[in-house]
Amino acid sequence: MTTTIPPSTPNGVDTTALFATLDAVKAQPDLATFQFRATNTWISGTHNVSTIDGYYGAGQEFGRAGGFRFDADHPPVLTGSDHGPTPVEFLLHALAACLTAGLVNIAAARNVTLTEVSSTVTGDIDLLGILGLDPEVRDGYSGISISFRLAGDASPEELVQLVERSRQRSAVYDVLTNGTAIQIEVNAG
Amino acid sequence: MTTTIPPSTPNGVDTTALFATLDAVKAQPDLATFQFRATNTWISGTHNVSTIDGYYGAGQEFGRAGGFRFDADHPPVLTGSDHGPTPVEFLLHALAACLTAGLVNIAAARNVTLTEVSSTVTGDIDLLGILGLDPEVRDGYSGISISFRLAGDASPEELVQLVERSRQRSAVYDVLTNGTAIQIEVNAG
Repeated sequence: MTTTIPPSTPNGVDTTALFATLDAVKAQPDLATFQFRATNTWISGTHNVSTIDGYYGAGQEFGRAGGFRFDADHPPVLTGSDHGPTPVEFLLHALAACLTAGLVNIAAARNVTLTEVSSTVTGDIDLLGILGLDPEVRDGYSGISISFRLAGDASPEELVQLVERSRQRSAVYDVLTNGTAIQIEVNAG
Repeated sequence: MTTTIPPSTPNGVDTTALFATLDAVKAQPDLATFQFRATNTWISGTHNVSTIDGYYGAGQEFGRAGGFRFDADHPPVLTGSDHGPTPVEFLLHALAACLTAGLVNIAAARNVTLTEVSSTVTGDIDLLGILGLDPEVRDGYSGISISFRLAGDASPEELVQLVERSRQRSAVYDVLTNGTAIQIEVNAG
């Protein structure tokens, strides 16, 4: 007689694969070296489009069948045409997406079944900075706030702890709060 | 006899509107106060979706006819299903989009006609951080590089200067290099 153990996928997370990934990286740490990429092409005015496709990780190159394409633009009030969100709005999406993916994985690892995760992110910015009208005003967001709503089979305290743990392990939260080095190269020959 | 002056739109930028915006904000600086927003909903596993729609700015609320919708996910090698890019990849798109929109506006203001602006962005990340396997490794990108290709009716030096000026006035570059404060609130009641 054979007993088949069904895969454990709380919250849609394959925890068997998750723990196997952790074991594989523990055994071979250079599998954790990743490089992500985007290419961007200017269309007209403030409208441009990025393609996100291949990346390097786990010791190999990966493609994604043509990748994903995203327009960015300014709204008419900022002399654009609303062909896509503004670049700074994509930062808000990235933050919500990273914290959410992380907390769902952490919930799965803790055997917490979630029934709802939603969030609203706001970013405040004084455009006197980028318009060059006040040197005391920074170019970027003066602050970002994110408000989560969570429901699941754990106490409110345990649900709050999922967000806190995700924050501690979030790549986007780290970059947006601490910054990172950016190198710029220009070929105009 | 009436002479009609055609609008000046180098690079697709309405410079008349651009300079009018600057004048309006100079006269009434609180028009520069903006708030951008995104809402995010978890779907399953690491897959979630954001909607980017309304924002506040120039003294009023704006909507964008249902807004823009973006999926984020992890790839299969990171226990996701590739329903969208990873959250960190959206940071690369945001950077390229912001620097590009800025330099095109600056070129228009300087009467430089551009024929090409394209860029490739890469972000290096060691996942030992977010996997919790090495406390010495940060969660986010160790570094980001962006390489531009520009062509237009200006000298290579002038084209390079467009990128440099855009960098100095880029909201996304500022946040990604210097960080910003993030407040997190959780409603799990």
